[in-house]
Amino acid sequence: MTRFALMLEFDGTQFAGLQRQATAPSIQAAVEEAAFAVTGERPTLHAAGRTDAGVHALAMIAHLDIQKNIDAFRLMEALNAHLRPQPIAVLDCRVVSGDWHARFSCVGRAYEYRIANRRAPLTLDRERAWLVPQPLDETAMHEAAQALVGRHDFTTFRSVQCQSASPVKTLDCISVRRYGAHVIVETAARSFLHHQVRSMVGCLALVGMGRWPVGRVAAALEARDRQALGHNAPAHGLYFVRAVYPDEPFPPAT
Amino acid sequence: MTRFALMLEFDGTQFAGLQRQATAPSIQAAVEEAAFAVTGERPTLHAAGRTDAGVHALAMIAHLDIQKNIDAFRLMEALNAHLRPQPIAVLDCRVVSGDWHARFSCVGRAYEYRIANRRAPLTLDRERAWLVPQPLDETAMHEAAQALVGRHDFTTFRSVQCQSASPVKTLDCISVRRYGAHVIVETAARSFLHHQVRSMVGCLALVGMGRWPVGRVAAALEARDRQALGHNAPAHGLYFVRAVYPDEPFPPAT
Repeated sequence: MTRFALMLEFDGTQFAGLQRQATAPSIQAAVEEAAFAVTGERPTLHAAGRTDAGVHALAMIAHLDIQKNIDAFRLMEALNAHLRPQPIAVLDCRVVSGDWHARFSCVGRAYEYRIANRRAPLTLDRERAWLVPQPLDETAMHEAAQALVGRHDFTTFRSVQCQSASPVKTLDCISVRRYGAHVIVETAARSFLHHQVRSMVGCLALVGMGRWPVGRVAAALEARDRQALGHNAPAHGLYFVRAVYPDEPFPPAT
Repeated sequence: MTRFALMLEFDGTQFAGLQRQATAPSIQAAVEEAAFAVTGERPTLHAAGRTDAGVHALAMIAHLDIQKNIDAFRLMEALNAHLRPQPIAVLDCRVVSGDWHARFSCVGRAYEYRIANRRAPLTLDRERAWLVPQPLDETAMHEAAQALVGRHDFTTFRSVQCQSASPVKTLDCISVRRYGAHVIVETAARSFLHHQVRSMVGCLALVGMGRWPVGRVAAALEARDRQALGHNAPAHGLYFVRAVYPDEPFPPAT
């Protein structure tokens, strides 16, 4: 048995999410089907994060165990061949030790949220960014966001479906920056609650529009009450961008 | 009669090109239909460039003449409402003088060509970049490209369907730069021949792969012969990015 770590990129638009579901297409089912086509085996895909329907990934990290004798490069090429034409690609593939786990070994996750801040409907960015027509004050958004950094009870920013044992998480960083007509929110933590990033971004957007004063984000956090949530930003602006491991399976090229 | 300049963004994937065609969808027909829906008039759309099927635009400049009394902002909003759900958006709209012409007043055009230089199939960038799996040497590509700058007979890099009176054009600049797994070619000229950018990029890619020595691009240019062309890069990596006018209808924000 060999454990392979995979770096996955996908367009989440047409999927019901990363995790396998009984009646809807998922990233997990697609990759597992491709693995079956390559190996004749039925491995389970384990991923660093469980992204929702419509959420994209630039570098989701996952693993699966294969009995068949195959090297990492050939496995990657074969998986990509069988994944076509679905918009899922294996960007990298490495052999890892049998006790390395894409989900349980992961000590950091990072997301990016893309807002297209313009009046005109989206064309090339359709389903790839959240269109917010009202002018956003990204400086106020960044300031408001800093109240979220640190260890807090994030109940306000947590989906009612969230399965996490505790609402307490430590947010390592969150930044809001403008690049022309795009406002980008970047955030990292050891782990996130279900809908946490989208809920934080939704409230920050209200600040950016001037509908919430800067301090209301801190007040919403303090409330520890889902009713204090202003807005949950849509899934299609969210990208899973990085998973961090003590034993890094994909070290950056030197 | 009021002349309106439009800044258009579009995803060219599903269109047969910018110019109206008898039997296939075009950007021109879509915008003219939207204008008819808004005004009841049948204006003709004139654009700075005539992009091919599959080619995208981030800021194509065009104009049309309207009799109806409507201001530029309302025209833009109404056109966008009627263009949906087609992936064409009016980013900006301004009144211009009756002797300003999107095509004939244009003194400069700029294109960007996006190459995704990686083995894995494209997901989020599908139909938005040219996938080149062989590692590209962007430094050699940039060096080779410099032979194209200046006034030359570009017959080698010209489509047989090109309707330009002369194959002689002046290329103002061309650069090749790498941003991670993307290799971006940027080029500007007063005007280009049909397929010129795609033909130049196709040959530069051969240099990047090591299949052509750097000097062969200059030799291909010198040959003034379409048979000397190495490769015509696909349309879906090409973006029209800028049109320049002495009377700039869309001055940059100060």
